[in-house]
Amino acid sequence: MLQTSRNRSVHLKRLIKSFGDSKGKQAAIYIEGTKTSQRIPTSDVDAEFRQESNFYWVTGCNEPDCAALVNIDDEQFVMLTPDLDDDHALWCGDFPLPEDYKTVLGANKVISNKPESLVKLVQELNIKKLYTLESKNDTLQNTLKDVTVDKSTLYGTLRDLRMIKLSDEIEEMKKICKVSADAHIQVMRHAKPNINEYQLEAVFRYYTSLQGATRLAYSVISAGDERGATLHYVNNNKVVKDGSLYLIDAGAEFPDSYYASDITRTYPINGKFTQKQKEIYEIVLKANKEVIASMKPGVQWVDMHRLADRIITQGLLDLNILKGDIEELIKNHVGGYFLPHGLGHAIGLDVHDPPNRDGSFKAINEPGIRYLRTHCELKEGVALTVEPGLYFVPRLLRKALADPVLSKFLNKEKLEQYFDFGGIRIEDDVVVTKDGVLVLTSDVPKEIDEMEAIIGKSQ
Amino acid sequence: MLQTSRNRSVHLKRLIKSFGDSKGKQAAIYIEGTKTSQRIPTSDVDAEFRQESNFYWVTGCNEPDCAALVNIDDEQFVMLTPDLDDDHALWCGDFPLPEDYKTVLGANKVISNKPESLVKLVQELNIKKLYTLESKNDTLQNTLKDVTVDKSTLYGTLRDLRMIKLSDEIEEMKKICKVSADAHIQVMRHAKPNINEYQLEAVFRYYTSLQGATRLAYSVISAGDERGATLHYVNNNKVVKDGSLYLIDAGAEFPDSYYASDITRTYPINGKFTQKQKEIYEIVLKANKEVIASMKPGVQWVDMHRLADRIITQGLLDLNILKGDIEELIKNHVGGYFLPHGLGHAIGLDVHDPPNRDGSFKAINEPGIRYLRTHCELKEGVALTVEPGLYFVPRLLRKALADPVLSKFLNKEKLEQYFDFGGIRIEDDVVVTKDGVLVLTSDVPKEIDEMEAIIGKSQ
Repeated sequence: MLQTSRNRSVHLKRLIKSFGDSKGKQAAIYIEGTKTSQRIPTSDVDAEFRQESNFYWVTGCNEPDCAALVNIDDEQFVMLTPDLDDDHALWCGDFPLPEDYKTVLGANKVISNKPESLVKLVQELNIKKLYTLESKNDTLQNTLKDVTVDKSTLYGTLRDLRMIKLSDEIEEMKKICKVSADAHIQVMRHAKPNINEYQLEAVFRYYTSLQGATRLAYSVISAGDERGATLHYVNNNKVVKDGSLYLIDAGAEFPDSYYASDITRTYPINGKFTQKQKEIYEIVLKANKEVIASMKPGVQWVDMHRLADRIITQGLLDLNILKGDIEELIKNHVGGYFLPHGLGHAIGLDVHDPPNRDGSFKAINEPGIRYLRTHCELKEGVALTVEPGLYFVPRLLRKALADPVLSKFLNKEKLEQYFDFGGIRIEDDVVVTKDGVLVLTSDVPKEIDEMEAIIGKSQ
Repeated sequence: MLQTSRNRSVHLKRLIKSFGDSKGKQAAIYIEGTKTSQRIPTSDVDAEFRQESNFYWVTGCNEPDCAALVNIDDEQFVMLTPDLDDDHALWCGDFPLPEDYKTVLGANKVISNKPESLVKLVQELNIKKLYTLESKNDTLQNTLKDVTVDKSTLYGTLRDLRMIKLSDEIEEMKKICKVSADAHIQVMRHAKPNINEYQLEAVFRYYTSLQGATRLAYSVISAGDERGATLHYVNNNKVVKDGSLYLIDAGAEFPDSYYASDITRTYPINGKFTQKQKEIYEIVLKANKEVIASMKPGVQWVDMHRLADRIITQGLLDLNILKGDIEELIKNHVGGYFLPHGLGHAIGLDVHDPPNRDGSFKAINEPGIRYLRTHCELKEGVALTVEPGLYFVPRLLRKALADPVLSKFLNKEKLEQYFDFGGIRIEDDVVVTKDGVLVLTSDVPKEIDEMEAIIGKSQ
């Protein structure tokens, strides 16, 4: 059922304002929501419905098979909705009526989502230009022959708008981060040697689902032993050996609000850090905390990545795993072999919000930093993950050891003692405030003593 | 990682045999697996990988982005696999090498999945005709200009082959039905008044996931109160009131074997059937048990639907909800207003296996029976769900009451007492044997006293 979204009208106003240059030019914005589909196209099994995030952001609508047209000239907001009948109600239950779309979402007009209705609407409103998103099976241009269809502008406009979260969105993020944080604590409590990775994933899903957050924001990474060094490990089907580290990267989503949480913690499965684990953990924790302490409006996100890289490089130098001059190490991007992913990404209405599918955040071609998804200057309302990690990836490290330049920075004998270590990542979600950040995921312990007090202590 | 599938070579042989008429005619079968994709195309969030069932049935391969070509003339089996590199391994872990596809899956040859590799292969083998499945973004005909691409034959061939399950498949189905059955018992144990529907769904998912069956075969229907009468209710977000019925339709799937379970049970949330609930429940239970007892090779599935319809109609007559002559009632399809869906569907490598997307099982246009998905004569190895139900759908019943012919069979005053009753469905999975059926889901209690002994008794 439709729900009131307090932000909806504000989002719509912001969107129309962004198209100010198009005012008076007979232009409109047209955007489609997720369509009902099958899990696999050749099967009869329905896919779970999940609204397209841009569409939800603009309209607040969480029903399938809808579309919206916003006339820039007079700010008229028209919803295009599916023609449903009693037979549909028998199978799927009650559905919203046109009045509901008006009352709850503030639509000025509700029409059928049939292609001919859109054609008629565009003719009636005398629209000459339509801003829309790229879509795979798009027949829009064929249907609307006299209209210029612009598929490139809207994506970037929405990306920039979505980058700044409003207060209501931050409240939604707080809620889902709290639910996910509590479930992470439950996972810690259920951890024990020889448990299977999928069983700990099950604990996370159980406790988030009990709170109504029945969907995952992304596939859980539940990785014991050396599997923690595979950045997007999702097989989650191995037993976690006593004495080894366990890394869990998991975040839930409510089925009808769509805001994501994204949290990673890493700890010994048996509840007691070894000296070796503690030494590496403290480097990553330092990077996590120093980045968070350094974030505020005006700071470049790229500089935060470089700060984390410096802390990790210095830490490995202090442990004698690396050798040489810190500035030389940084110049040669040695840290990128240990932190091979970006420091963090924008998060919100999707785990990557805004996403970067059009490649508009240009990558910097250096080891590690080339995977930094988001490049921005921090501003109030920007929500980001802060997720420094330190991994020992034998495949990568052997490459570095074989490299004549890099190898002189590596203490081979010492480094090889870490080949089965796995990886450590500590990930929090934060929102930039006026003078710093608000950490949304501070309920999940990350200090060694706090975690040791909880691990394995299921109630 | 690739796994040995004991059935694979048998399936391949059966498939090639089905194309016996094409032998010596330079024809081949080409089939694609699921491709890596995003959850929503505009997002950066990866979709959970789930192999296309036909592809898995033919090849046994559970890796993404693969395809297979089977040369009918010499029975050569070529796998087309993605070109992966160290960067892929960094993010996703180790991947199978060409040798693995040969050793584990029995491929005779392994080549790249690039379009140009397929073109070259088809030229080398001098293939003139390619049997394949319909696919949305199919560029096959454009790529292979000199080859006739037949997109209609293979679907039906695979449908008929998949209809008969081999012994190894039945073993897989037993395994997943056992896991789902145990979880259904846990849901019964956790049931209590004022629990939320999503919390009982969470219990089901938790206990199946703890056994490694981490995926659902389909979206769970967890429905209290009158919501049990919405056939595919999936919102699962309401509190279940004391005194009301609770219906749960749920089945899990292992992440790498793909066989489905599909089980429904209905019971009072507080553990004690009222007289009114008991009376309706016993009608449905009778239909479930009499159908199961009547199934054997040679029986028409449509006749089993008609048997269930007769039992339900007679039961409602006995309760004085319906009136008139039973044969008249049946002739007028009155039962279809209370059992508005089909008795059951084929099940296996998907919850609908084979699916009916090409409409090859022709529907009979009568109330209720027009939704019977599968029409077949029972044969050894056919796996089906048996899921009679009895629902009070006010919207439907008001229609019947307003109908001059139907209304004379309805005892209006009595019927209206059931408008908030909801619905009851009892669903088991069975496989046809030499002289009857094997019930795969018999571990879940369905007798009233057995269920009353368990409901609410969480350990």
